[in-house]
Amino acid sequence: MQNKNFQKKKAKKQSLEELIVGIKNGSIASLSQGITLCESTNLKDRALANQLITACMGMKRESMRIGITGVPGVGKSTFIEAFGLHLIQEQKRKVAVLAVDPSSERSKGSILGDKTRMQELSMHPDAFIRPSPSSGALGGVAQATRESTILCEAAGFNIILIETVGVGQSETEVRQMSDFFLLLMLAGAGDELQGIKRGIMEMADGIVINKADGDNLNAAKRAKREYQNALHLFPAAESGWTSKVGICSALEHTRLEEVWAMLHDFHRLTIKNGYFEKNRSSQLGNWFEKSVNDLLKLQLFQASHTKSLFQSLRNEVMDGNKSPIEAAEELIKSA
Amino acid sequence: MQNKNFQKKKAKKQSLEELIVGIKNGSIASLSQGITLCESTNLKDRALANQLITACMGMKRESMRIGITGVPGVGKSTFIEAFGLHLIQEQKRKVAVLAVDPSSERSKGSILGDKTRMQELSMHPDAFIRPSPSSGALGGVAQATRESTILCEAAGFNIILIETVGVGQSETEVRQMSDFFLLLMLAGAGDELQGIKRGIMEMADGIVINKADGDNLNAAKRAKREYQNALHLFPAAESGWTSKVGICSALEHTRLEEVWAMLHDFHRLTIKNGYFEKNRSSQLGNWFEKSVNDLLKLQLFQASHTKSLFQSLRNEVMDGNKSPIEAAEELIKSA
Repeated sequence: MQNKNFQKKKAKKQSLEELIVGIKNGSIASLSQGITLCESTNLKDRALANQLITACMGMKRESMRIGITGVPGVGKSTFIEAFGLHLIQEQKRKVAVLAVDPSSERSKGSILGDKTRMQELSMHPDAFIRPSPSSGALGGVAQATRESTILCEAAGFNIILIETVGVGQSETEVRQMSDFFLLLMLAGAGDELQGIKRGIMEMADGIVINKADGDNLNAAKRAKREYQNALHLFPAAESGWTSKVGICSALEHTRLEEVWAMLHDFHRLTIKNGYFEKNRSSQLGNWFEKSVNDLLKLQLFQASHTKSLFQSLRNEVMDGNKSPIEAAEELIKSA
Repeated sequence: MQNKNFQKKKAKKQSLEELIVGIKNGSIASLSQGITLCESTNLKDRALANQLITACMGMKRESMRIGITGVPGVGKSTFIEAFGLHLIQEQKRKVAVLAVDPSSERSKGSILGDKTRMQELSMHPDAFIRPSPSSGALGGVAQATRESTILCEAAGFNIILIETVGVGQSETEVRQMSDFFLLLMLAGAGDELQGIKRGIMEMADGIVINKADGDNLNAAKRAKREYQNALHLFPAAESGWTSKVGICSALEHTRLEEVWAMLHDFHRLTIKNGYFEKNRSSQLGNWFEKSVNDLLKLQLFQASHTKSLFQSLRNEVMDGNKSPIEAAEELIKSA
């Protein structure tokens, strides 16, 4: 992997046409360069990135996007490594791992961070791991990851695992770009709930209780029953799917086939009842609307004084000294 | 009440100063006119409304805002009528009832609709009932209701009940303007969950199982236990409050004091730990940001072609034929 990265750094910059053909043919070098283009803060790159994304969307390759969340300590990296390998080796899939970390301010030097967390998976030719874009990305971190998803799919990766990084910041956004949203938990005293945003449990399509091994196995089975009972009390999902609870041990690589069976059942059901396509389409619509909002705000903040005015008005409003509407009008008029 | 409305229609238009003084003194006529100003689509009215809201915010009167949701059939109107009367008669409060109905296209003629639903409460001098603003309101229905809340508080109403109307459309918005979010449910087979948006149950600060009377009482008690167990599995709220489950019969006016006790406990806890103020302040911040977005969009859509372009681009994006970012840029450039 280090060699690959070394090559990437030395690789010559490909033209848009080369990138499109390369990605279509599954070239990792082209895919990496394409994603870098999407993450660029340069406006010329942005224009190329737009064309690249449109071309890749046109390839319409089948895939399943799986959002994965869970608090630190739940074993997210170990799970993704073990589950990714299971998907490649047992289910004959190609797996891309992406991440959304809104707090990422990493230097380019730490690009290997995610790969060292998942050493075996990152070495596999049917896996592609890309760390979270930096928060400098033009349209924001989540948007860059959405775009990476499109590129990975065009390159032939048919399972996209999208991980939330950090606590309580990106769950909603990752869910907005996933077909299936998976919540990793531990059996235990409830401490593992700290930091999970409220509403997320109810919105998960599946809960998997990790570390179901050794002395923990019985507790995990008990927790599974409890959560399964609780989920019955939740409102039905629009997908027609009833959320499921599974257990596994990522460390011992056990019961991962049950996790896959859950995902596969969901996929089959939602393809059949049309929800899969409907959801993707509505996610695209939301993404468009969000982009419109982001661009309008970007324009607004181009005037140097508006950003600081925004902050000071926001503070006045939050202190209860100005009506929110009045403040908003003042901001817009000043631009 | 009909007399009051008749008077209101004939009442002369008050100046801004008269409205401010009137509202401060608890005049219903001034309050009604003030709210009408906030709901107006006229730009001159809007300017006055902004000043009025800022003046009312400055009065900083204490209150509790309670969002109430539940599917049709759960007995929302009956509950609000019974609970409102309880708050007035037993807890010596002044109660305003507002609503958010995103689908409201009512003519002015149907303004009595909500009042006939809550006849006894609407007759009470310590109650004020206002139906949902029409969807024509400049900043949207929810914004107008947020503003009405401020005006009602300035007029001395210290409990604001904000009801969601319609199914699955306004829960999130009403929660965003409430201190406490209450989900009304029925004991039963789960049918009552139809139409509740996923994530709402988990975000409710309290669940009250209504119609706990007659043959239903035991089922309600059982449901209470089930939900209470399920809620224990939820992530902790930032408020430090653990969601509670209560039962009541709005029809027979029983156990309403237990519902109030729940709200009161929440209020005491969150005032003490500072969450109450923090939440209100952050709601104001969100309201400001939403207003900025809304105004920017309003500007964008002032050019006659942009609205239809928005729709056609959105369709292209949703069909997977264009990148969301590219489409957004195209829209902005065309304005």
